[in-house]
Amino acid sequence: MRRFVADKTRNLISRISRRTTSTSSISRLVSSHHPTSATLHRPSSSSSSSSFLTANFNFMASNYSTAPLSLQTINPKVLKCEYAVRGEIVTLAQKLEQELKENPDSHPFDEIIYCNIGNPQSLGQQPISFFREVLALCDHPAILDRSETQGLFSADAIERAFQILDQIPGRATGAYSHSQGIKGLRDTIAAGIQDRDGFPADPNDIFLTDGASPAVHMMMQLLIRSEEDGILCPIPQYPLYSASIALHGGTLVPYYLDEATGWGLEISELKNQLETAKSKGICVRALVVINPGNPTGQVLAEDNQRKIVEFCKTEGLVLLADEVYQENIYVPDKQFHSFKKVSRSMGFGEKDISLVSFQSVSKGYYGECGKRGGYMEATGFSPEIREQIYKVASVNLCSNISGQILASLVMNPPKVGDESYESYTAEKDGILSSLARRAKTLEDALNSLEGVTCNRTEGAMYLFPSIKLPQKAIKAAEAAKTAPDAFYARRLLDATGVVVVPGSGFGQVPGTWHFRCTILPQEDKIPAIVSRLTEFHKKFMDEFRD
Amino acid sequence: MRRFVADKTRNLISRISRRTTSTSSISRLVSSHHPTSATLHRPSSSSSSSSFLTANFNFMASNYSTAPLSLQTINPKVLKCEYAVRGEIVTLAQKLEQELKENPDSHPFDEIIYCNIGNPQSLGQQPISFFREVLALCDHPAILDRSETQGLFSADAIERAFQILDQIPGRATGAYSHSQGIKGLRDTIAAGIQDRDGFPADPNDIFLTDGASPAVHMMMQLLIRSEEDGILCPIPQYPLYSASIALHGGTLVPYYLDEATGWGLEISELKNQLETAKSKGICVRALVVINPGNPTGQVLAEDNQRKIVEFCKTEGLVLLADEVYQENIYVPDKQFHSFKKVSRSMGFGEKDISLVSFQSVSKGYYGECGKRGGYMEATGFSPEIREQIYKVASVNLCSNISGQILASLVMNPPKVGDESYESYTAEKDGILSSLARRAKTLEDALNSLEGVTCNRTEGAMYLFPSIKLPQKAIKAAEAAKTAPDAFYARRLLDATGVVVVPGSGFGQVPGTWHFRCTILPQEDKIPAIVSRLTEFHKKFMDEFRD
Repeated sequence: MRRFVADKTRNLISRISRRTTSTSSISRLVSSHHPTSATLHRPSSSSSSSSFLTANFNFMASNYSTAPLSLQTINPKVLKCEYAVRGEIVTLAQKLEQELKENPDSHPFDEIIYCNIGNPQSLGQQPISFFREVLALCDHPAILDRSETQGLFSADAIERAFQILDQIPGRATGAYSHSQGIKGLRDTIAAGIQDRDGFPADPNDIFLTDGASPAVHMMMQLLIRSEEDGILCPIPQYPLYSASIALHGGTLVPYYLDEATGWGLEISELKNQLETAKSKGICVRALVVINPGNPTGQVLAEDNQRKIVEFCKTEGLVLLADEVYQENIYVPDKQFHSFKKVSRSMGFGEKDISLVSFQSVSKGYYGECGKRGGYMEATGFSPEIREQIYKVASVNLCSNISGQILASLVMNPPKVGDESYESYTAEKDGILSSLARRAKTLEDALNSLEGVTCNRTEGAMYLFPSIKLPQKAIKAAEAAKTAPDAFYARRLLDATGVVVVPGSGFGQVPGTWHFRCTILPQEDKIPAIVSRLTEFHKKFMDEFRD
Repeated sequence: MRRFVADKTRNLISRISRRTTSTSSISRLVSSHHPTSATLHRPSSSSSSSSFLTANFNFMASNYSTAPLSLQTINPKVLKCEYAVRGEIVTLAQKLEQELKENPDSHPFDEIIYCNIGNPQSLGQQPISFFREVLALCDHPAILDRSETQGLFSADAIERAFQILDQIPGRATGAYSHSQGIKGLRDTIAAGIQDRDGFPADPNDIFLTDGASPAVHMMMQLLIRSEEDGILCPIPQYPLYSASIALHGGTLVPYYLDEATGWGLEISELKNQLETAKSKGICVRALVVINPGNPTGQVLAEDNQRKIVEFCKTEGLVLLADEVYQENIYVPDKQFHSFKKVSRSMGFGEKDISLVSFQSVSKGYYGECGKRGGYMEATGFSPEIREQIYKVASVNLCSNISGQILASLVMNPPKVGDESYESYTAEKDGILSSLARRAKTLEDALNSLEGVTCNRTEGAMYLFPSIKLPQKAIKAAEAAKTAPDAFYARRLLDATGVVVVPGSGFGQVPGTWHFRCTILPQEDKIPAIVSRLTEFHKKFMDEFRD
């Protein structure tokens, strides 16, 4: 359904373009590497089941003919925005899930396995007990002094709850906080950053947000004045960036990660794309780097990061560092280094580089997506600019306090000697080592498939294999008016119940096809996924072999 | 400091206006009633203590001269945006609070009393126990089956937590939910709306959000294409609206509430302003109504609401109904009626009017601001448009689950026969009756002051008295380069520690002066506030009497 709307609206956008001046606000995308491609490939239509929806849709729409809002009259930036991670394939999966509930024999599988989104707890990952104990106590401080509480909660969770409540004016966890977040919690986070990096962090640079997404939007809002403003983004990218740039009316300037070198980030590519954008009149304002990579799973080498910092400094770009997977590293030869640490270790201080680091409670070993906690550390901005960021934050008053508390906990977990330390460490290590095993198993399985190559998942939560599809499959996709990778993902879902996101939602070198699959299904499900996927792929290739 | 930045940036905006094309995105404000006024009066500068900050600021700014971002190069819509509720006076109050902490004798009062913002729990209001019990249990479900839990939590809270967890796929309160919110919770909310209104509500129309503010932003994003699009807003208004319209680059079309008739909303005024805006080429897209009123405290009569609905239907406007104070009614002759109920009772169905109702867990008797829960019920939109709203919601994944749970609780509190019913009712009635008494006491006190008239607070959480300031005071304000009401509020803070927001932050008829003061300080503090305020006002008037 969404795909259909996207298609329909795309036509509308072009019609509106010819008619009105508002087209100037539609975000664009420039690229030198593949000058004729639209980069984020968009299939021109959908499959047969959508046709039914289409008919249904037109019927329903006609009843709203006098409504003040129509696709022709809403903000075209909203129409332009797309977010594949929750796109058509997910809507379809939800439909199949409903059908399975009503009739368990309706499909050749007994459950839908959502590998489309980094949502660990939806697939059975358990939260870290210590974190949840503290949250519960902060939610209902009335029980803190009760004797039964000693039996239910660990001593250090009770102590931590007291500490946190003491940091909150009036112990009021139900009050709006400072718009950057509770000062005491920001102190804790700054101390955590300092421990991580070995360089000072200032609590006044921390802005606590409801997950990392609102922080990204805030920065885009600050940076983008018009479609003449460009943001350098990796391709493939996490579609939050393309969506946010579209919503704010800017231009996505893509730089391609090199799949052949394990999704390498080449400075020459950055320079090339920057120059091309400039030559088209685009004022490039910032560089987005996602490290560890989403959807690509690569972890940048420190030397590479130094060159990126140097590039931003030389070109006067704000460095937007998506570091939400900083705890998710699975290979012994790679380590996470924050861009702040790298910059400071190069001798670049507060006045030398404008740098924003995004962190979230949704990822790592904690995976607390539903809590919507996160922060950005914004360094290298003048007080006037920080004041403007504060103002934008203040319009939404503050982020949710439970999320704020959780953000402080992930940056200051139990320490050696604390009552919870042992259980905390066991839970954390259990999750991370299991994720590493799952990544390896899935990677090996994918690499064993005909025409599939998959770089290793060094970090983050995803595999992004390349699939060489037979011409016959590409033609079948064309006939079904869908992108070849979307066609493959759709067939995979229909045959196995496994939900992946087509590479076209993230961007890819034109003519190549990928999908993103999370490593998050619980370990006992991995063998079944591997065998289902292997069987499906074999049949698919047999069916479409040229 | 913020005021200084605002002034400085205003100059910058006008300079940028002359230089670049980006001025077209700056939001404007049109008015027929007071055609020459800027309506949201903005003082041209600040007082002496700000001068110090200014100097300090310039010094600091100079060190960032090579930074990629400056006030000249950020998005001018961000510069344009203002949010008085957390503006200069609050920054100053925080400074005084710090000074008091360091030296309790530094000021002629021993504490700062924040009457600037509707933040009940920051002033000592206690949360509803039942709600917090359920939240704590949902945060840490591991204790649900433990025997100690029976002693700590009420039986219906335990039962409710089980019910809610059963509605969450996999009981995963740490997972991203459906982007509109957990379906089971939306069912509960829809049932609550239906009970309230006596008309059906559809869970698919509910979008759960982190407080009401993100919902307002979402609608503005959808509605505003350019500065040619206008939104009718009451004056005085809650500055979220002016801020959001500015951020999205639209035009605020003001309509004036009539102070003489208890902040009456006249349809003739709506028509007049609509026509004026149209004649200036503005496409007016929506009407914002805040009921009960913020900052004005009036509660609309049902008959008036019918005329407003009729007006929106006739003029093809989306009705944006801010109904976050629906539980805050303090006078026996007024009742809350939702605009949905009013529309349906007029026979207008889904296809006849586009209506959005905003609700929040931050207000009412619950006052859970820090939990960031809320929802909008969007009715009368075609499936295509709802799909676009869903897409925008999905880019931020979902609102926080604790806030979602709380939104379901406030729409479905304990019922007769439940273990917690009695304590819940006692807590609720205690809070609401106390708020009513506080409102009346403060209203009477204000009305007893020379030159002050204050409409009664029928609902919401605010008083918005008019102050007739002596010419000498107005001249003193001019000399101090500040607005007369900001001058008064500043003097009030310096003398008493009471923080109020100058009327200029909300908009007012030019030449009139007001301030907004919440009714939220705890009841035992009210007599002291009244006497301090009375004493201050008398001295102020004596000092500046013409």
